[in-house]
Amino acid sequence: MGNIHPLFWGHVYGTGSTIGALAEFITGTMNTMSWGGQQASIYLERKVLSWLNLLLGFPNDETSSGILVSGTSVATIIALAVARKKFHQRTMVIYCSKDTHSCIVRAANLLGINKENIVYVLTNEQRQIDVQALEACIDPNACGFIVGSAGTVGTGAIDDLQGLADICARRPNDLWFHVDGAIGAVACCSRRLRPLFTGLERADSIAFDLHKWLFVPYECGCILVRDGQLHRSTFAQPTVSYLTLMDGGITPSEGEHFFSDYGLELSRNTKALKVWMTLKTYGIERFGRIMEQNVDQAFYFAHLIEQHSNQFELLAKVTLNIVCFRYIVCFPVRTHERHLNTQKHANIEANLFQEESNLNNGNLSDDEKQNMEQRIYDLKQQKQDYLVANEILANEIIIKYLASSTTKY
Amino acid sequence: MGNIHPLFWGHVYGTGSTIGALAEFITGTMNTMSWGGQQASIYLERKVLSWLNLLLGFPNDETSSGILVSGTSVATIIALAVARKKFHQRTMVIYCSKDTHSCIVRAANLLGINKENIVYVLTNEQRQIDVQALEACIDPNACGFIVGSAGTVGTGAIDDLQGLADICARRPNDLWFHVDGAIGAVACCSRRLRPLFTGLERADSIAFDLHKWLFVPYECGCILVRDGQLHRSTFAQPTVSYLTLMDGGITPSEGEHFFSDYGLELSRNTKALKVWMTLKTYGIERFGRIMEQNVDQAFYFAHLIEQHSNQFELLAKVTLNIVCFRYIVCFPVRTHERHLNTQKHANIEANLFQEESNLNNGNLSDDEKQNMEQRIYDLKQQKQDYLVANEILANEIIIKYLASSTTKY
Repeated sequence: MGNIHPLFWGHVYGTGSTIGALAEFITGTMNTMSWGGQQASIYLERKVLSWLNLLLGFPNDETSSGILVSGTSVATIIALAVARKKFHQRTMVIYCSKDTHSCIVRAANLLGINKENIVYVLTNEQRQIDVQALEACIDPNACGFIVGSAGTVGTGAIDDLQGLADICARRPNDLWFHVDGAIGAVACCSRRLRPLFTGLERADSIAFDLHKWLFVPYECGCILVRDGQLHRSTFAQPTVSYLTLMDGGITPSEGEHFFSDYGLELSRNTKALKVWMTLKTYGIERFGRIMEQNVDQAFYFAHLIEQHSNQFELLAKVTLNIVCFRYIVCFPVRTHERHLNTQKHANIEANLFQEESNLNNGNLSDDEKQNMEQRIYDLKQQKQDYLVANEILANEIIIKYLASSTTKY
Repeated sequence: MGNIHPLFWGHVYGTGSTIGALAEFITGTMNTMSWGGQQASIYLERKVLSWLNLLLGFPNDETSSGILVSGTSVATIIALAVARKKFHQRTMVIYCSKDTHSCIVRAANLLGINKENIVYVLTNEQRQIDVQALEACIDPNACGFIVGSAGTVGTGAIDDLQGLADICARRPNDLWFHVDGAIGAVACCSRRLRPLFTGLERADSIAFDLHKWLFVPYECGCILVRDGQLHRSTFAQPTVSYLTLMDGGITPSEGEHFFSDYGLELSRNTKALKVWMTLKTYGIERFGRIMEQNVDQAFYFAHLIEQHSNQFELLAKVTLNIVCFRYIVCFPVRTHERHLNTQKHANIEANLFQEESNLNNGNLSDDEKQNMEQRIYDLKQQKQDYLVANEILANEIIIKYLASSTTKY
């Protein structure tokens, strides 16, 4: 079962879209190298970034900067590198919650930031970073890179971005406000959902994916940086000889925009085309409606779980399109859309019911029950009728339902 | 004039191919997230990497590792990070020549390696790193990351890879042999050209592009690492909760190959398909012939220059498909394949001849002559009949001709 199956409810994978696939074909046909110069792809990327600035309420002028990248992991590396440049040779501590995505640790690791300089702040019962706890643990003698999540990958929780922005605004020379909006930030497409992200627009940097909830084909993420000059000075290399800028040539004079000055790569394809074509074809408002539908589906699903509280248990507040829950007794099996070999399917189903019936046996220890739950989860995946994901909350393996398909629109 | 114009002789841009564009379309249609798990894309990438190991004579077993990335810039970041992991907390000095690509400095900058720890070694008259000079300047008390170029982007010079491998073999615990094969390594497709790269197969890491001379659409590069375990331990994160590995599910048990453990990203598209389809369609041997043809074109062009030594001057030894030269007097104008507005074209041409005639005027100072040469170069680009690139050798702006099209085959 692939990402694009309509019953794929596991992990935050984007489904892509038809127009996105076509855009990839056209991009491959032109095979433009989008590092800079007076090429359509450069103007296209600048246009797309301008739209994204408007979408997220970020400064949409020459003072800020941005670049399309492979995804939030690379966007985070860039943000962290720019912040380190700002805090030049001073100690930088990263503050985030345990629910923050692992790309933060990966980026810190790459940049040579010690584990000891990553501080995990407690979360509140809504699994948001605890703003008071954060304030209490900020080192007044060090610089800080404060990470707010605009939708955690575990439960979809959105941190109090306004609260985090306030903290950083008090010490702008020492604190950097970074938002990890990988899965959620694009929900700003919806007027109804946008207020959830209030404060996002005050970030020093926003990293987010377009290949998840915006349905652009892999790979496509973005980093926006408030201080564009700082961003450029972090990555721009002294001009290499064969790229010497010359008026009138294909490598024009200084002042032209070179995306290779803002990221890790010199050779780049044209990610902007698939974003441009996707947004032009479907439009921001339609994506807003899809996202609202997905969120509504999640709330409806959560509602069903609450109605069956003898069998299921909801384990985290639903904010966006993610529902975390666990079985208490058993899980009804969906019977439509069966593609598998019938015999294999029947065997799996028999196993499944056997396991579930064992689970109902009150003589099992908690450990045994948990093992059983895990085993049932595995069998659900093997059945391949639908796919939900696993998650660990409070050290328990649980089930995660995630709505991000475009079934209706 | 784009990368794919048959008279595009500037910069090392790949042209891509029809099958490559189609592969991008199919990749977009499936929109697979290729981080790991039991998916076709993972097996495809392992197959492609196995072919690349064989092509470059690298160990093709479980001891080595590799991953497809956006290009050599990211491949270099990965190689440098793995070497730093090996030399854990010891000082690491980077040794390279001035002709080494700027991606080395960019990677060092990102990883927080000080400029002072980058040592530029002299080059010999063939613009290869001077092996004796290198030996003399290696710090016996520090670890070293030694960069050999398998084709520099400036002149196509190939360093004495065997000599560099020998140096590193003497202190394997302290020295890391990295090869930047961005533009050249894939020329191993040709049996005739392969001997130029002898020693490449002894590298600790090889970074190279498939989107240049192998005609795979942007973006596609590769990093191969001899010590696969070290590579994995540099990037693998502690398993995050929602990716907990489970037998029978879509996130299978430990032991399965997760590409996200070997690079910067978790979300990855399927770059392997375009490589697989390209190699299956055209075949290694055919690419070998194309590369031989390109090299022959470069040698022929250099021969023409030598025949017109009153007008032109060859400025670097031709090794691969790059010819660096300068005008002495004037440059004959090609007249076929004109697409431009005729009037505009005529104006540019008139300017061009005017400038050239000025250049012939013996009363100009050297500075004025150089300015003229640059201006002529600019006008050549504006004419857009063909495109050559600029390059700086010995502080002079010169012209670079680069053959990498697939005109014949």
